[in-house]
Amino acid sequence: MSYRKTYSFRVQPQDVDFQYNVTMSALANILLTTAGYNADDNGFGIRFLNEKECTWVLIRFAVEMIRFPQQYEDIQVETWIEEVGRASTTRNFTIRDSKNEIIGNACSNWVMLDLNTRRAKDLLTLEGIHQFASNDSGLIEKPIKLDAVEGEEYDGFKVKYSDIDINGHVSSMRYIQWISDCFSLNCYKKYSIKRYEFNFMNEMFFDDFVEIVGQEIAPGDFRFEISKDDKTACRARVVF
Amino acid sequence: MSYRKTYSFRVQPQDVDFQYNVTMSALANILLTTAGYNADDNGFGIRFLNEKECTWVLIRFAVEMIRFPQQYEDIQVETWIEEVGRASTTRNFTIRDSKNEIIGNACSNWVMLDLNTRRAKDLLTLEGIHQFASNDSGLIEKPIKLDAVEGEEYDGFKVKYSDIDINGHVSSMRYIQWISDCFSLNCYKKYSIKRYEFNFMNEMFFDDFVEIVGQEIAPGDFRFEISKDDKTACRARVVF
Repeated sequence: MSYRKTYSFRVQPQDVDFQYNVTMSALANILLTTAGYNADDNGFGIRFLNEKECTWVLIRFAVEMIRFPQQYEDIQVETWIEEVGRASTTRNFTIRDSKNEIIGNACSNWVMLDLNTRRAKDLLTLEGIHQFASNDSGLIEKPIKLDAVEGEEYDGFKVKYSDIDINGHVSSMRYIQWISDCFSLNCYKKYSIKRYEFNFMNEMFFDDFVEIVGQEIAPGDFRFEISKDDKTACRARVVF
Repeated sequence: MSYRKTYSFRVQPQDVDFQYNVTMSALANILLTTAGYNADDNGFGIRFLNEKECTWVLIRFAVEMIRFPQQYEDIQVETWIEEVGRASTTRNFTIRDSKNEIIGNACSNWVMLDLNTRRAKDLLTLEGIHQFASNDSGLIEKPIKLDAVEGEEYDGFKVKYSDIDINGHVSSMRYIQWISDCFSLNCYKKYSIKRYEFNFMNEMFFDDFVEIVGQEIAPGDFRFEISKDDKTACRARVVF
């Protein structure tokens, strides 16, 4: 039995930026869609968890790109589960272009959320899922716990209608978009993102006031924190 | 020869709002994608115009929905050209669900932009396009020239990286998203959008400061204006 499976995508016009490159958030969406397909194929998709009044929540996510695919490019995303612990599970990804060359890798950590208590649930209760733990590492460093950021204010605004997903909170993709929007067009013209990494810590809701602070801690190595009041929703690292 | 052609879409998770309904901007994206496919099929797509150093620019757009399709729904979009004038061309759309029932209609006006002069070009110069003018009206009122709006300030912010498309300006879809974000979740819970209508008037660019003003001119009938300094980028009408 193979633990790895590959899914095909074409980069759509709405996925790309002014340079025809897929954006950080559109790429994340492709990877999370892949995770969803594979979880369904394994029998542990969101709809199965919903029947048990639970859902999957992404808590950490790291992506490293050799190059970003462009508009209309066909890409293949291979995915597999590395580990299933009691608290969380690790899923890896490898992204290849149409010549079968690796153009990027990603790693994600997930917890199972109990929709009634809004707390994480022991994955031991999910009978059969442990057989999918392959122990195969991905090709990049796993996402780590990111430190608190004390930096300059990059942005501040209210959460709006289009930020809210079917779970009633700000979608992970939106946090990634907000961080991608902390850089200028000139920055994207001159430099290419090598790695981006997110910790998703607390939910944000409609009408919450978002504050984004950031700091360049080493040349080309940026840390960000998205928060409301004194609660951190998300921390991010972007390396050019 | 049939002037009408139908294209199929599935509403994707990233297209829907907190109530699983396709958003105004994601639906517009589906309709503009349909226009792109059909223009290519007719031999007058953007890539053909690009060879002549021209492009299509959407100037007016109206959508009327009986109901908004939901996540994972399969929809069929029928499209045809009604008129080709010297200054602009009119393209209609009818949206059907999987039971072949009409759930919405749309109408769009386009001009051909000369990429060198940034001005509209006479469509008479586009040999062969006039044979696609069917004279078949759509099922809804065409988009009209919307009046100036003097209303309260709804929002103000700077244009960011992810707002900019491959043409180097704010994408039409983003204007539509910004207008959809002028309403609260409660509003979307209580009411359904019946018609939305846009005039696209001037380009906006990276780092421009966006101001959105709006006014409810009759119960459930909202008018908006998006502008920078004294230049109007876009006017909109949203009827619940």
